[in-house]
Amino acid sequence: MILYYVSGACSLANHIALIEANMAYELVSIGRDKRTDDGRDFLTINPKGCVPTLELDDGTVLTENLAILAYIGEQQGALLPAAGLARWRALEATSFMTTEVHGNFKPLFYPDTTQAEKDTARHKLVKHFATLATQLGNRPFLLGEQMTIADPYLFVMLRWAANFGIEVSGRFGTYLARMTSLPSVARALAEERLS
Amino acid sequence: MILYYVSGACSLANHIALIEANMAYELVSIGRDKRTDDGRDFLTINPKGCVPTLELDDGTVLTENLAILAYIGEQQGALLPAAGLARWRALEATSFMTTEVHGNFKPLFYPDTTQAEKDTARHKLVKHFATLATQLGNRPFLLGEQMTIADPYLFVMLRWAANFGIEVSGRFGTYLARMTSLPSVARALAEERLS
Ligand SMILES: N[C@@H](CCC(=O)N[C@@H](CS)C(=O)NCC(=O)O)C(=O)O
Ligand SMILES: N[C@@H](CCC(=O)N[C@@H](CS)C(=O)NCC(=O)O)C(=O)O
Repeated sequence: MILYYVSGACSLANHIALIEANMAYELVSIGRDKRTDDGRDFLTINPKGCVPTLELDDGTVLTENLAILAYIGEQQGALLPAAGLARWRALEATSFMTTEVHGNFKPLFYPDTTQAEKDTARHKLVKHFATLATQLGNRPFLLGEQMTIADPYLFVMLRWAANFGIEVSGRFGTYLARMTSLPSVARALAEERLS
Repeated sequence: MILYYVSGACSLANHIALIEANMAYELVSIGRDKRTDDGRDFLTINPKGCVPTLELDDGTVLTENLAILAYIGEQQGALLPAAGLARWRALEATSFMTTEVHGNFKPLFYPDTTQAEKDTARHKLVKHFATLATQLGNRPFLLGEQMTIADPYLFVMLRWAANFGIEVSGRFGTYLARMTSLPSVARALAEERLS
């Protein structure tokens, strides 16, 4: 399996999930010129040109963060329970983060965003992180005692919040420290040269 | 089960899926004042204030379009196959639409979007619909011979494209006509007073 990634991008969530799931993977990084680090044109692999992109051992190419997280989570089991409310809460939280949280970081990444747009996006991000802080409460993981696919994604969103100076609940300080101390997260950060 | 909806909003996808899945549901519509049509404060039901929101018979409230579609699809079976590539393609396409397609309609809905932002969003929408047209090809449904959860969502996105004058592939003309002629879609449109 190959995970096409950009260091620190949302693909870091899939990277952590692959390690948690104990699945074998190779990493291939994508440059700003949309070439892989081994010199191939990334658009021939994923015409949408974005990471994460997962290439399965039979050559099938799967895109979209949530779909890839669900794929990994279902292979492993606990990261995305097969049934019960935890399953739906994990998909719900991950979908909320891909649409509303990641979605409102995008204007902060684009060079041509106006200040007004940035302010609107930041305002929404503060609100959405507050929603997530309420959901987290004082539990170790977003949905309770067990890590689910929602946690690696939340971890990446919180790193971005820190980078962009988005103020988030103090609860996330404890959460981030706990996540960062996990062997899976530490390994993913090291492999992406972020630690 | 109660589906909280706004006529013609993205909740129309869940409405169609509920009918396709032959699941019993009640409809409650949400006004701009965030009150239900039976006079309750919608924010006490879903603090995020957005539709779709699905209330299960045991009172559990599930939010986020993709999570609700997956919930309905897995109960019914064919709309979200339990295994195999069709499963991952359905989740991938639905996630692409919630993040990139729906995401780029948002600036067109907001009153304070600048013309430059609107142009950027329209440009991306044209590109994303082209990606979807390539995937559709000349098949009856986005992923082939069978409807999946991706189709009700695509149907709603194409209605919005028509409303905002986003130019899409001619293939979608045939697709929209076929979808509209399905009893499930016709019934959902009638129940939302859109036909
Ligand atoms: N809808 C995609 C969005 C992925 C996305 O935004 N990826 C970013 C990195 S976090 C990226 O590849 N940006 C470069 C580009 O889109 O050209 C998903 O949910 O996976
Ligand atoms: N992330 C949510 C977004 C849902 C959404 O944007 N809903 C719109 C209607 S299509 C809405 O309720 N807008 C009113 C609001 O957010 O206040 C999802 O994927 O379900």
